Parts: sequence; structure tokens; C-alpha cells
Amino acid sequence: MKLYGYYRSSTSYRLRIALELKGIAYEYIPVNLLTSEQKGEAFTSRNPFGSVPMLEADGRDRAQSMAQLEWLDEAHPHRPLLPADIEDRYTARELAYAIATETHAVNNLPVLKYLKDPLGHSQEEIDIWYRHWLARTFVPLEGRLAQLGTGDFLFERPGFFEVVLLPQVYNARRFDFDFSDKPHIERIERACLALPEFQRAYPDNQIDAP
Amino acid sequence: MKLYGYYRSSTSYRLRIALELKGIAYEYIPVNLLTSEQKGEAFTSRNPFGSVPMLEADGRDRAQSMAQLEWLDEAHPHRPLLPADIEDRYTARELAYAIATETHAVNNLPVLKYLKDPLGHSQEEIDIWYRHWLARTFVPLEGRLAQLGTGDFLFERPGFFEVVLLPQVYNARRFDFDFSDKPHIERIERACLALPEFQRAYPDNQIDAP
Repeated sequence: MKLYGYYRSSTSYRLRIALELKGIAYEYIPVNLLTSEQKGEAFTSRNPFGSVPMLEADGRDRAQSMAQLEWLDEAHPHRPLLPADIEDRYTARELAYAIATETHAVNNLPVLKYLKDPLGHSQEEIDIWYRHWLARTFVPLEGRLAQLGTGDFLFERPGFFEVVLLPQVYNARRFDFDFSDKPHIERIERACLALPEFQRAYPDNQIDAP
Repeated sequence: MKLYGYYRSSTSYRLRIALELKGIAYEYIPVNLLTSEQKGEAFTSRNPFGSVPMLEADGRDRAQSMAQLEWLDEAHPHRPLLPADIEDRYTARELAYAIATETHAVNNLPVLKYLKDPLGHSQEEIDIWYRHWLARTFVPLEGRLAQLGTGDFLFERPGFFEVVLLPQVYNARRFDFDFSDKPHIERIERACLALPEFQRAYPDNQIDAP
């Protein structure tokens, strides 16, 4: 498989973690978002959405990280990301999709750029925006994890939820988000980052990181 | 099942369509977003995310529409929303998640409210914002549908993709989005709205519509 991504793209980071957890060998091909390489013809002819990650796998160029993750688990079911039990699968997806559909999109690079130009907002206003939408999901998420009595991971081993959580936490730390009242999220972060799979997937450890 | 929703909430509309397509009887319980009923203690004690739709089903209060849809198809697999073939499932999810993760979140009511207050933008600026993010997904989506040679539906019958597409198209029409160069999306919209399942799920036909 070939993963086209960018070291600091949190959706690319999702796929790196997923592939590592599954033990699937892949080639990582950097796409420079700062020079808008993903909007060039060479890239959009393969992925019309003009976004990373793109996963070239089993003869097809795949866009959209959440669809890629669901596909990976169906087409390559060893070391599954989602648990076997239908109710547990629901739990993992509820928490993962809360991040993917509520927080990530609103804080994605194109939105932050639009806030700056044409809307003319300052970096300080953008930082407040960023933390506002993070809190909107991370506060109830922390509550849900407490309700569930979550330990180091949502289930016995990291999977679908942690694949989506860790990249969002990485972003949150870049924007100085306050985790002091989020012990469950912090514990999961710590437990994941201790694992070699997460370390290999970590943004700062990619070949396109500065 | 009980579906807590709001007539014009597009994520609630997704669930109404899904339940109708599956032929699952449900009780629809309106939650008034205009008075922020979903942020009240009575609601958040059951759904900490404070959002609709909430699906009370099989003994559990379920938040997050995409996780609800995936769960519905696993727990109630008759009349499946997703096709059986793994590659077709990927296709349906790629297109559905493009809308759910890229367009919907950025144009959701809380974001539009935030643009107005505290950010102080005019309704005209907000309308431009709305159409900007719609185009960002609908243009490549139309291209993907053309590539796939899509007819009235993505596959033989409407399913996962149409469940997510139709509500976004409904919203787009409210914001006068230009569909003149989107023949595939318009054809799917027309074919779906001709079906009684989509008519029963339609926002204007709900008991909480004005």
C-alpha cells in the first residue's frame, strides 16, 4: 500500500496509526500541503477531493480517511480496529465520529485559512476558535469516557477510537488546549504514545517533518 | 425505537430516511434547537454531546448520526443501507463521509451562530461561507458520480450515500446553492424525493415543521 500524506495532517496520522496497528507494510509519500500540492492536477486527477490522506491500496486510489479506516477493517480483517461485539463497535464509532464529524472539520487547515483570508481574523481569534470547537467535543467525550470507566484504552487494545483521538490530541497540544480536567483523554494519550506503533506513526517522526 | 430530532436538522433527516428505508417503525420526538432544548440538563444527561439526533434503540441512548447509521446496519441488517460487496461499501462510504466530515460540520448551526456572534459576520458573509464549503465537496462529488456512471442512485436502490446526500442537498437549496452544473446530484435528488420513504422523512413533513 502507498499512503500519500502530510506529517502534520491529522487525518494522515489516523491512517499511519491504523496501518501500524494492523502491521501492514506501506510506503509513505509526502504531499506538501503548504505549497498546495494536493490541489495540483497530478494529485486531483487521482483524488478529486484534493485532500490527504490518499490510500493507494488493492488497485484503487482511496480518498476520505474514515471510509479508508472502515474499508481497511473489512478488507484486511486481521488485528481488527473495531471490536467484534456490535455494541462495542457502536461505542468506538460514537466517540471516533464525534471527533471526525464535529471537531476535525471545523478546525481543519482550509477553514483556518478562510478565517484569516477573506474573513480577516487575527491568529489570536483563530486560536480561540480552535480551542472553542475542541472543547465542544472533548468535554462531553471526557464525560463519556468517565461513564464507561475507561482505562488505558477504550477496550483491551487501541483501535478505531484511539486512531482518531490521538491525532486530535496532537493538534490540541499545538494550540495549547487545557487538558488539566481531562484525565481520561490524557491517560489514553500516554498509554498510546508508549507503544512503538504510535511512535512510528507520530507526526514529528515522519520523513517530511522539519 | 425513538428518534429525538429537529425537522430541519440534516443529521436528524439522515436517520429518518434510514429508518424509513429499513421499514423500522419509530416514534419521532421533536427537540427544539431554536430554544437550545438539546443543551438542557434533561437532554444532556442522556446525550452528553447535546446534539440531535439521539436514537433510543435496543436499550441505549445513541448519539452521533454516522455511528447510528453504521450500528443500524449491523444490528438490523435487513434491507441493508450499505451494499454487500466490500468495494461498493467503500464507494458509498467515501462519498457519504466526504459530506459528513467535510461539509456538514463546517456549515452546522453552531458554527453559523459563532460566525455571527462573537465573530460579527453579516448574513451575507455567512451565506457565502455556506456556499463556499458546499462547493468544496459538491464539485468533486459530482465529478466522482460522473466517473462512476451513476444513474438514479449510486447503486440499485438508495442507501448509505443517499441517506447523507439528500439532507445536504435540502440545506443547499435553502442557501440558494447553484445546482445547474450538478446533473448527477440533481438526478439522484429527484429520484429519491419521488419515493414515499423520502417523502415521509422530508423536513417540511415533520410534526415540528412550521
